[in-house]
Amino acid sequence: MATSKRAAKATQESLHRIFTIPEAPDSTLGRIEQEISQNLAGFLGDHIAAKEIALSEIEKDFACSQIPEDPSFVSDHMHHLLDKLVAQSVHTSSPSFIGHMTSALPYFLLPLSKLMVGLNQNLVKIETSKAFTPLERQVLGMMHRLVYGYQDDFYQQWMHSADHSLGAFCSGGTVANITALWVARNNLLKPEGEFKGVARQGLYAALKHYQYDGVAILVSKRGHYSLKKAADVLGIGQDSVIAIPTDQHNKIDCVALKAKCEELSAKNIRVMSIVGVAGTTETGNIDPLTEMAAIAKHYDCHFHVDAAWGGATLLSNKHRNLLAGIELADSVTIDAHKQMYVPMGAGLVVFKNPASVASIEHHAEYILRKGSKDLGSHTLEGSRPGMAMLVYASLHIISRPGYELLINQSIDKAKYFADIIEAHPDFELISKPELCLLTYRYNPAKIQQGIDKLTADKQLEVNKLLDKLTKYIQKRQRENGKSFVSRTRIEVEKYQGRKTLVFRVVLANPLTSDDILQDVLSEQAELALESQRFLPKLFKLVQQ
Amino acid sequence: MATSKRAAKATQESLHRIFTIPEAPDSTLGRIEQEISQNLAGFLGDHIAAKEIALSEIEKDFACSQIPEDPSFVSDHMHHLLDKLVAQSVHTSSPSFIGHMTSALPYFLLPLSKLMVGLNQNLVKIETSKAFTPLERQVLGMMHRLVYGYQDDFYQQWMHSADHSLGAFCSGGTVANITALWVARNNLLKPEGEFKGVARQGLYAALKHYQYDGVAILVSKRGHYSLKKAADVLGIGQDSVIAIPTDQHNKIDCVALKAKCEELSAKNIRVMSIVGVAGTTETGNIDPLTEMAAIAKHYDCHFHVDAAWGGATLLSNKHRNLLAGIELADSVTIDAHKQMYVPMGAGLVVFKNPASVASIEHHAEYILRKGSKDLGSHTLEGSRPGMAMLVYASLHIISRPGYELLINQSIDKAKYFADIIEAHPDFELISKPELCLLTYRYNPAKIQQGIDKLTADKQLEVNKLLDKLTKYIQKRQRENGKSFVSRTRIEVEKYQGRKTLVFRVVLANPLTSDDILQDVLSEQAELALESQRFLPKLFKLVQQ
Repeated sequence: MATSKRAAKATQESLHRIFTIPEAPDSTLGRIEQEISQNLAGFLGDHIAAKEIALSEIEKDFACSQIPEDPSFVSDHMHHLLDKLVAQSVHTSSPSFIGHMTSALPYFLLPLSKLMVGLNQNLVKIETSKAFTPLERQVLGMMHRLVYGYQDDFYQQWMHSADHSLGAFCSGGTVANITALWVARNNLLKPEGEFKGVARQGLYAALKHYQYDGVAILVSKRGHYSLKKAADVLGIGQDSVIAIPTDQHNKIDCVALKAKCEELSAKNIRVMSIVGVAGTTETGNIDPLTEMAAIAKHYDCHFHVDAAWGGATLLSNKHRNLLAGIELADSVTIDAHKQMYVPMGAGLVVFKNPASVASIEHHAEYILRKGSKDLGSHTLEGSRPGMAMLVYASLHIISRPGYELLINQSIDKAKYFADIIEAHPDFELISKPELCLLTYRYNPAKIQQGIDKLTADKQLEVNKLLDKLTKYIQKRQRENGKSFVSRTRIEVEKYQGRKTLVFRVVLANPLTSDDILQDVLSEQAELALESQRFLPKLFKLVQQ
Repeated sequence: MATSKRAAKATQESLHRIFTIPEAPDSTLGRIEQEISQNLAGFLGDHIAAKEIALSEIEKDFACSQIPEDPSFVSDHMHHLLDKLVAQSVHTSSPSFIGHMTSALPYFLLPLSKLMVGLNQNLVKIETSKAFTPLERQVLGMMHRLVYGYQDDFYQQWMHSADHSLGAFCSGGTVANITALWVARNNLLKPEGEFKGVARQGLYAALKHYQYDGVAILVSKRGHYSLKKAADVLGIGQDSVIAIPTDQHNKIDCVALKAKCEELSAKNIRVMSIVGVAGTTETGNIDPLTEMAAIAKHYDCHFHVDAAWGGATLLSNKHRNLLAGIELADSVTIDAHKQMYVPMGAGLVVFKNPASVASIEHHAEYILRKGSKDLGSHTLEGSRPGMAMLVYASLHIISRPGYELLINQSIDKAKYFADIIEAHPDFELISKPELCLLTYRYNPAKIQQGIDKLTADKQLEVNKLLDKLTKYIQKRQRENGKSFVSRTRIEVEKYQGRKTLVFRVVLANPLTSDDILQDVLSEQAELALESQRFLPKLFKLVQQ
């Protein structure tokens, strides 16, 4: 009994210790922190994309479903994490990791993140965030101005207004898109007469009241999958997201868009929202936003722009005209954790009309009381961390011209990469870069020259084999670990719109050099030649 | 021209530098990092709840809507942040900040957070998270086992299965609750015959197909406001969340619940979900989960338990029986950033049936391909940070018995606080602590003794005055800055169910001592006496 009491007291003291601030930098925790920093620097300095170990192997280290009954020492557990987790993580910051939208971060964000976590503010309400609330409102104001460019007096009036909001911070672009379409839905199916609005009575009553046979969201077939998810979540249904064809530059076909609007109206299906894409996930192209805005206006529907990727381009005076018309949107999604180089978990949506969020307002008795400036009354999420601080710091330390340089360089780099792909006889550029994304594939010169002469059946056979080759190269390159490109499947006009497997690259990392890009291509060419399975078959097909 | 080129080159070099790892700990950034750590330690060591400065004053520092055209030096900006932001933040970690669910964090999480941010993994897919994917699945497995307690073979079969998921990590309890109800909705209104399911065809078609006149979510009137938000987002409508009365212990009245189910069935309104609360936000009480599960079973509907706050109690062998019946739930929300002492942004939901998430499955061509183990195919959010690592580390370093001690202590502390409130003649305990939450108010002995003899009108007048006094004390105490309790408005049985303003405390901070609790009460008593406006009027009312 006495022993167990002593043990309990010891555990209690050790627990008390872990909640207390370590006294000195040379304390155990201080030393551990230094070791982590060094290890992290080593990891970030490694110029590899990933160590390739089979996932099934890694899973063995994460197989136990029992919460430990014995505490681990902090230092032991750190070593365990460095060994089993960090070493098997993906080097998203490596200059040769050019496959996804996750890139290197400015180093100053690391100590700032520690500060953010240490302060542990909760932005749902002022009582747990105080100065973070006006800071977040300011960042939303800055991003709103970047998109809409109103004058000072507009922002003085609305930025810190309790009952309005220029936008909403959220964990990422998906929640931002859901929030935008939620606002659109609730404003379209608003209270009227006896009907209390979709927010209170739901979609079934709303469609009955307004006597629509359905509602629809129109977006190009290059729209992000989160839009279908949003339609599912919002009760509209995925089938209500109607994919409009694109032209050969992956931009929405406005004639088809208009025709679809007509067709839906004739069927008594209300177009709830038209969504423009500014930087498609797969090819980085931008829809004709001005034209789309006019169509949205004609059909009196919400015009949302998903600029999760491309929105940061507005920071470049040289390239911002690529997004001309975005200022006509009712709402715009921008991910700060993409091309604004902020850590994962920082999405946002801005609304042209600061009053439009009233349709999603929520209150409670213990917080978010009416008239309060609590941010949580206009967000989909409740408790949220102070990520806005990292966006704020980046906007100040990098500044607009700094971002401009980053954006301009990444577009230049994509053009350079497109040039060397086109100059190489055995590669085929599939989508030209408008921003810093492009797609291509390995396709031997002999095949490129011979394919047109083949029958449709044979052409299909060639393309099927090329798909297999693309997948083979992509996987082998990833396994080699020196570099990483991703792959996707997109309709290619010159192959009769056939869904074709292609390499996809995103050239956002400022440390990616021309040499690295050349190496990526060389390695892919080598891998293609190495493979005994595909090339001989391909050559046989064109020789027949 | 030459100058501007030189300037551009200089900017470019400086940009390149900020993305590169600083060489030595004595570099500028190393020094800045040390300064931040010291400042943070100072902030965390301050035993105050907040400096009271009017929000309107703070807003002046965050008034500019223009993104800076000139870059700031990192060190200058850090000082700016420390001065304007950190100094005006809320000391959520202070032992005298006992008003909300945000508390101190174990210090080892700070260096770990820096590691997490530095690695910048994106958990939506394996290609950007690798080992973090099995780690997150393991943490979900551990939390699932904590709730449902299945044997090893169950977890071996499902924990790492591509087409299944034991749950979903998300940014917080609100998204967790939305996810649970989204799954419930999609499973209830599933495909059948020609009907392709609510996920594809939406709610309007779904209700028409199933010939329901509506769907409903039933929860006690103490349910969290996020449930109404969820019903709004999901297209069901806030009015479909039906608040069931509670008994005097703030627990749902199961007779009323059953009666409401009957009534709705008779009206052809389908009960979609019954939601049990395990730790109400305002009073910390737990619904009779076993009884609710039986009712849910009888009406064949999804039984969700919102244990955002109380779920961590399962880690205490002494108190976990308070949540008996939770293992009968189809889904359970637990916030790791509440009583599991993980930084803001770590919510999760677990599902009893690993196949139930199939109803919210999403795919895309570039990621989340069918058969992949990408976590993003079963989450509401898309890109997400590696917060699971912080939960994993806490489970290992604190361990279950460590958590048990933290939970037990916080409940003991709440009982101690309730005792000194009851022992004090001028305070009135409103809700007894079941977990570590309680509500109370200042109510002078003379009033407590005299109120019963008054007419109903006079009683109302007294209570209205007491409400004003409670608000006055709460605000003045917050402004004094030594400590912080929150306030809310709840129906109190002994005052004929009248909505009464009360102090609300959450005693989760392990560093909160008995002395601090005594001081909180003493300060409140002093503030009450100081006020010239309320007490004389109150005394006059009982003397008449």
